[in-house]
Amino acid sequence: MFDQLRFDYLSCAGHPFLETPNIDKLASKGVRFSRCYVQSPICGASRMSFYTGRYVSSHGAAWNNFPLKVGEMTLGDHLRDIGVESWLVGKTHMKADSEGMQRLGLDQNSIIGARVADCGFDVFERDDGLWASGPDGQYDEKHSPYNEFLKQKNYPGDNPWHDYANSGIDQVGNIVSGWWMKNANLPANIKEQDSETPYLTDRAIAFLDKMQARQAENAAPWLCHLSYIKPHWPYIVPSPYHNMYGQNQVIGAVRHASEKENPHPVFEQFINNRIGLAFQRDEVRTNVIPAYMGLIKQCDDQLGRLFAHLEKTGQMQNTLIVITSDHGDYLGDHHLGEKGMMHEPSVKIPLIIYDPSSSADTTRGTVCDELVESIDLASTFLEICGGKPHSHILEGRSLVPFLNGDRPDNWRQYAISEYDYSATSMAANLNLSPRDARLFMVCDKDWKYIHAEGGFRPMLFDLKNDPDELNDLGGNTAYSDRLDQMAQCLTQWSMRQSQRTTISDEQIIKARNRGARNGVLVGIYDEDEVPKDESAVYQGKAGRKYTPD
Amino acid sequence: MFDQLRFDYLSCAGHPFLETPNIDKLASKGVRFSRCYVQSPICGASRMSFYTGRYVSSHGAAWNNFPLKVGEMTLGDHLRDIGVESWLVGKTHMKADSEGMQRLGLDQNSIIGARVADCGFDVFERDDGLWASGPDGQYDEKHSPYNEFLKQKNYPGDNPWHDYANSGIDQVGNIVSGWWMKNANLPANIKEQDSETPYLTDRAIAFLDKMQARQAENAAPWLCHLSYIKPHWPYIVPSPYHNMYGQNQVIGAVRHASEKENPHPVFEQFINNRIGLAFQRDEVRTNVIPAYMGLIKQCDDQLGRLFAHLEKTGQMQNTLIVITSDHGDYLGDHHLGEKGMMHEPSVKIPLIIYDPSSSADTTRGTVCDELVESIDLASTFLEICGGKPHSHILEGRSLVPFLNGDRPDNWRQYAISEYDYSATSMAANLNLSPRDARLFMVCDKDWKYIHAEGGFRPMLFDLKNDPDELNDLGGNTAYSDRLDQMAQCLTQWSMRQSQRTTISDEQIIKARNRGARNGVLVGIYDEDEVPKDESAVYQGKAGRKYTPD
Repeated sequence: MFDQLRFDYLSCAGHPFLETPNIDKLASKGVRFSRCYVQSPICGASRMSFYTGRYVSSHGAAWNNFPLKVGEMTLGDHLRDIGVESWLVGKTHMKADSEGMQRLGLDQNSIIGARVADCGFDVFERDDGLWASGPDGQYDEKHSPYNEFLKQKNYPGDNPWHDYANSGIDQVGNIVSGWWMKNANLPANIKEQDSETPYLTDRAIAFLDKMQARQAENAAPWLCHLSYIKPHWPYIVPSPYHNMYGQNQVIGAVRHASEKENPHPVFEQFINNRIGLAFQRDEVRTNVIPAYMGLIKQCDDQLGRLFAHLEKTGQMQNTLIVITSDHGDYLGDHHLGEKGMMHEPSVKIPLIIYDPSSSADTTRGTVCDELVESIDLASTFLEICGGKPHSHILEGRSLVPFLNGDRPDNWRQYAISEYDYSATSMAANLNLSPRDARLFMVCDKDWKYIHAEGGFRPMLFDLKNDPDELNDLGGNTAYSDRLDQMAQCLTQWSMRQSQRTTISDEQIIKARNRGARNGVLVGIYDEDEVPKDESAVYQGKAGRKYTPD
Repeated sequence: MFDQLRFDYLSCAGHPFLETPNIDKLASKGVRFSRCYVQSPICGASRMSFYTGRYVSSHGAAWNNFPLKVGEMTLGDHLRDIGVESWLVGKTHMKADSEGMQRLGLDQNSIIGARVADCGFDVFERDDGLWASGPDGQYDEKHSPYNEFLKQKNYPGDNPWHDYANSGIDQVGNIVSGWWMKNANLPANIKEQDSETPYLTDRAIAFLDKMQARQAENAAPWLCHLSYIKPHWPYIVPSPYHNMYGQNQVIGAVRHASEKENPHPVFEQFINNRIGLAFQRDEVRTNVIPAYMGLIKQCDDQLGRLFAHLEKTGQMQNTLIVITSDHGDYLGDHHLGEKGMMHEPSVKIPLIIYDPSSSADTTRGTVCDELVESIDLASTFLEICGGKPHSHILEGRSLVPFLNGDRPDNWRQYAISEYDYSATSMAANLNLSPRDARLFMVCDKDWKYIHAEGGFRPMLFDLKNDPDELNDLGGNTAYSDRLDQMAQCLTQWSMRQSQRTTISDEQIIKARNRGARNGVLVGIYDEDEVPKDESAVYQGKAGRKYTPD
């Protein structure tokens, strides 16, 4: 998993300038899904959906650092149930529910407590990758293995993550922070091989070697969540990637002045927030996008290293590999930066699945354009590992049929994404209560509908005739039937049974035919009316007549 | 809390024959709520809503013995947080999530594990009251303190609960099971003082005495969930209650032949299930209802004992008392027995709150007809005890304003109830998948709308002009506007934020103004654009230029 990698910033997905041969090669050996949507276009919430296989409204960790409540089952829990280990190498952006853990007496230092606090994974290396601090303290108070690594490499100071990996050198030799986007064109102040992406690749290779070394011991199969920090901001990349792409390779922003005319009030907030305003400036795009492309190029090169290692050690033939991201990046499209709103650059992600098994031979190199959601991966992994993707807990659906060239008859008709902006200044500006600052996207292949809680009109885009989503039809009465129909899909989804997670559909169906076979005999007037298969244990067994003392 | 006590089987609620002077007296000292709805008309699901303060779709324990998932916060957890103990004396009908507990390493024998397994209570006495067994084993495999008590009193046999408390003596001295409703008119085969309701009253008095004895030690305040088994079936009651009411005091069934003409398919299933068919027989009603009335009369007498003890020990002036039930009982109304469907006899419950504090003096003896839900009690108890009824977890609202004679401006406009019949033969007969076998009721003071998942038309009742709910307008196109409006209420409710339970609205609002004060500075092109209050800790602090080895 990459962080903030746009679906269309890969050469296999049609980028005209960026070359990603290693990712492309995996796509040529697997299936590329062209319509994969995240459950929320924000790191934390999206990842919690990947890790639980459940919609954001179902697991509740709706924004960065909203803790994932204790008790939510994770992919790791499901895999452990069938004897498969689940390991983390990299980022999760998961905040533990420390209050809930305390309530249940769970110690973060116990095996179970650590898994609960690490989103269900066993940790080979956890590095959430944002080692910032300010007047109110650190953004992330956990230990940073990457900072430790840099210190061991003699990079000095408290926070070499910032001062080296995420700072640049200007023309006169000054060290300048990568936080300021005017510095995005500078080389990062670090050896390329010590920067974050190679570092995590090193860790992944170390993980692979460790796992392979124990194969002789008949060890359990494993899943590895290799979770890169990049190409997420700070947008700065070491030489030679910093100037590998030039301003003439920056694609023009997909935006139109008309989008700012009478915009939806929530969209207007995004346009006018600090990030939106920044990415409306040409100097931001021309500085940032080449760095973003360089970061992706570096990611691709590192995947090349990783794949070569898998080949060399004979593991390429028995390892299923998925390439994806937690959300996209607007990069100035629609007058926006970052993510959060629900245009395609934000909610759509790359998804490539390489399955080495022969059952997937017929689909190698193909593109699947069905509606796929990020929660489908948890169910996919479970099926691949021989488990059952329990539908009373997991809300996604296994993608294995698509890998095998099948298309389920009743595949989903629409995809869902959610965004909770309750903790942002945009909600404050709109004077919204925390539960009204929520967006819900419903899209099929032709239409995208965005419902905003809080009494706003919806947004609507005609994806077929307006694939760039420049024309919001949500206030256009000519589309009231379409709006109603999309609203009905949202209602249907919101009525789903998402919390009945302690009993399976199979158990429920089995219970239907149990009748009163455990002695609860309701609605029977006389003994001789008891159905034979429910015959009461008390027949002829009554005790003695009560006799007063 | 009583079990299966209809809202209108109290003299203070207008029953023409049944006299409940002790309950009436509490109503005269408190507020009686005339429109209190349960979140689900079935023991287990309803109780889990009382105990969590959350809707059934939010906590997920949607039917009897569907385990309450580990991690769900309970009233006991909330009260303990503010130093109030929470004790159980009686029934819960709660099944522990043993798989979830095992996953989190929670031992039922630890203090925390026991609370999780006992729905958040500390147990003075837990007796779920259904000690039946049949060919498939016991309905409830837990220990029965009541059976132990009877054995200590020398009632013989394995299961004196059945053979004495729930069996009768016929005219020739035979012992006959209380399961068969033809025996409901017989006296139970037990000393009245040893039957279930006096037994639990004894236990409650023992609890009160124990708590009072330690007051000297500056002990914590407490809540006691005194949870009676009765007047729930088996419908049989000891002398003299068994013949205190006669057939001439059985109110005619509220039903009409027209209800069976083209009925809603789900309603039709209820009409034709074993219980519905039984209660359509006159001999069932004339046998059962006098026993049901006798059971209620016994409950009232026992409350009289309890209240006298509170008076005698000086506790009546510092004890808030609530009388309620987990759901009602059709008793043949609408051609149905038991509960499950959503007519008033099933979903509406008695609710009387006596608050000894002087702030409640102005409302003593009044009736409040606002729309109240059973989940409101958890929030009420928290407010009474000085805590905050956290709205990010608790979905009900404190009733304290009504006790003090206020009416909040924005009180709820509709009440919700749900019923999951997925594990019943009715779902099998309708060939419904487990997630389609669900009913949702939305009602205000004038209309009741019932949505059935699974592709059925809705039901609709005009409560103002058809208070007996005999005329289902759900298929009548003349009411399409009303149907749409009620459906919109349901949609609004289903879109509620129910799982974001790890962060409070206050915390979210506070976060809005934090900006980047922990060093994450996004969307800034140049250092001098940083707002002063977010000034980066890195200003002037960058390290050294990286020098290659």
